Amino acid sequence: MKATGIVVEYNPLHNGHVYHAQQAKAATNADLIIAVMSGNFLQRGEPAFVDKWARTRMALASGVDIVFELPYRFATAHAPVFAHGAIRLLDAAGCTAYCFGSEDGNVEPFQNTLNLLDKTSDEYNQEVKNAMQDGLSYPMALNRAYDAVSSGSEKSGRHVDLSKPNNILGFHYMQAANAISSSMIPTTIKRLGAGYHEETLDVNRVASATGIRKSFFSTEKLDEIINFIPETTKVILTEWQRERINFGNWESFYPFLRFCILRDGPVRLATIADLSEGIENLIYRAAQTNDTFQSFMESTKSKRYTWTRIQRMLTHILTGFTTEMRSGMDEPAYLRLLGMTDKGRSYLSSIKKDLPLPLISKVASFSDPSLDMDIRASDSYALAIGKGSKNAKIGLDYTLSPIMNNYFSGNSLK
Amino acid sequence: MKATGIVVEYNPLHNGHVYHAQQAKAATNADLIIAVMSGNFLQRGEPAFVDKWARTRMALASGVDIVFELPYRFATAHAPVFAHGAIRLLDAAGCTAYCFGSEDGNVEPFQNTLNLLDKTSDEYNQEVKNAMQDGLSYPMALNRAYDAVSSGSEKSGRHVDLSKPNNILGFHYMQAANAISSSMIPTTIKRLGAGYHEETLDVNRVASATGIRKSFFSTEKLDEIINFIPETTKVILTEWQRERINFGNWESFYPFLRFCILRDGPVRLATIADLSEGIENLIYRAAQTNDTFQSFMESTKSKRYTWTRIQRMLTHILTGFTTEMRSGMDEPAYLRLLGMTDKGRSYLSSIKKDLPLPLISKVASFSDPSLDMDIRASDSYALAIGKGSKNAKIGLDYTLSPIMNNYFSGNSLK
Repeated sequence: MKATGIVVEYNPLHNGHVYHAQQAKAATNADLIIAVMSGNFLQRGEPAFVDKWARTRMALASGVDIVFELPYRFATAHAPVFAHGAIRLLDAAGCTAYCFGSEDGNVEPFQNTLNLLDKTSDEYNQEVKNAMQDGLSYPMALNRAYDAVSSGSEKSGRHVDLSKPNNILGFHYMQAANAISSSMIPTTIKRLGAGYHEETLDVNRVASATGIRKSFFSTEKLDEIINFIPETTKVILTEWQRERINFGNWESFYPFLRFCILRDGPVRLATIADLSEGIENLIYRAAQTNDTFQSFMESTKSKRYTWTRIQRMLTHILTGFTTEMRSGMDEPAYLRLLGMTDKGRSYLSSIKKDLPLPLISKVASFSDPSLDMDIRASDSYALAIGKGSKNAKIGLDYTLSPIMNNYFSGNSLK
Repeated sequence: MKATGIVVEYNPLHNGHVYHAQQAKAATNADLIIAVMSGNFLQRGEPAFVDKWARTRMALASGVDIVFELPYRFATAHAPVFAHGAIRLLDAAGCTAYCFGSEDGNVEPFQNTLNLLDKTSDEYNQEVKNAMQDGLSYPMALNRAYDAVSSGSEKSGRHVDLSKPNNILGFHYMQAANAISSSMIPTTIKRLGAGYHEETLDVNRVASATGIRKSFFSTEKLDEIINFIPETTKVILTEWQRERINFGNWESFYPFLRFCILRDGPVRLATIADLSEGIENLIYRAAQTNDTFQSFMESTKSKRYTWTRIQRMLTHILTGFTTEMRSGMDEPAYLRLLGMTDKGRSYLSSIKKDLPLPLISKVASFSDPSLDMDIRASDSYALAIGKGSKNAKIGLDYTLSPIMNNYFSGNSLK
């Protein structure tokens, strides 16, 4: 059986994601799709809209056959580390191809750019460093460095536009796959509909996850977004709203975040991953004086620190993720199974004994600092979603088995 | 002007406390009473019923002329350290006497016991150590050690009964005063009414603070307790209930405590003051599986760890107080003024320049790790009381000046 890998957040899963999974399967002539999916905290440093089990159910109902959890350490990291973790896991899971979304749906420009940067890598890395020392954010620094090395050299063929957010992750997936000499074949699908940064919903049935969340939070009504999500996503979100009341976002998590900041104080905050250079003092003072997440962010962000970079710090504060903990987590050490279809189960049975990493179905049977971190992050999320009430769903990593079925059959793109 | 010192928690201030302040003043022929009062977390490892400013107002209306804050490090420590911090501050404040409650109102038995233990101190300390290694709690260990050294030696005169909780603190005050060669004269007043451990309210108008809180929490109605508190306490508690809704207790703080435990995990918990010997694992597991503070405690306490000892650990977890932070805090380093009457102000003006420690009226004007800890503890308390809502009163240490007046005049024992 031939498996193609994708890297997803599904925050929440919408029609564009269904399309992507279908196209990925078709384009690579695959028998099944394996997704590496972030847990409860995401790459832009945000709590997920709903937890990883709800999003796994959405995935299994929408064309994905196996969902592995991207460990916290990678899921909340900047693009190169995020991509490294995800590609490693897809490679370890035996995928023969992987597929990502991009602006124009062609891998050749990515390859050309990688070849160019490979030839100029010392110069490129130095340019990235210089740009960051000049105070540029990491994405901006990549762009400037790329411009610097590409302008002086002969470009052969088209190059990828790294100023487009949709292209940056794809570029890093391919770079990561090259770095580990993966035999997986890269593929890309042109993204549909609204741009990554576009937040308004338009008349067709595809919108960005960001736009969908924003639209939902403006009224807290799921009716606002049903045009853009498959029926199964709607059912799962409705169930979530009935059981948990709250959806994950920073504003509602702020009481717990603020508590952590004021409790830790600057000295202890400085041990948290990504906090350094005195920003712990800025964050502590901002938490003392700001009652809302919005005002907190407005008093914290600056030219030096992008919104995303600060949000990643705040995620690490909320989950208590320290620089010391991170230091031992450079490589993914396990394949944590969140769910599978019948087809996914057949596939895993067939390759189980050849897997280069342990396959985790029950967390209690495996001991690893990165897995412990994933569990703590789940519990922090669950307590914050549940406002710390008695009904908060703690310890689901221990009590839930991998989700074993399509909960809904025949889900298709509307 | 002649000042007598007392050490208080006022949790909340009740008729017995008014009596004690009056008697302390009369018995020592003092012009004014200086109280060293715990901040928002108390000696038995509990959040205070109401915060330190509300309790300062109660104090100033009930016979106390100056309130200094006992720093967190001492206020939440076991008896010898608690007593050392409190006596140091009363001595630094220029008191000529100090006065504590005891079972029979006589300092002589305390002095006899101190003399005996002084003579046998090596043996005594070794007996305390042995008893604790045998798994006894600290108070039990003191008793056994005392029995061991006193049985073999000639007792001269009556000795204090250290099995009575009311006597233990007094004993440590006198021991601490001896240790620093304080010239303050010790005095003691016999306690009225209910015993320290008695939790039922009786027909007379004096009850223990523990009994008063228990009675209040059973119905959440202040009417339950008005017989046992002075009018001013009632007014201040009524105001608190209107503004803050919640009173401090572990059950209502548990969501934040649990969040801290699950977020930190065993590795980080082990850095918290008093946590060691693997109890961090027990605490982490208990937080994973218990929805209420009561059930959490029931699954954590054991012969080895008394309820109080565990509560002190939990206090340090909630406030993020680490062993490393504590290591630099062996001596009180400042006199933090929480409030004073006009008479208290005159007294402070007269001795201000002779004070051996800095007098802090504005926290922003002084920098000290112990003061930072007091501020963080205030904010943790305020967020937990306010359930993390926008209305939580953060930063009061910065915004409130010392309380400068009797808010209510003529308050007297009913």
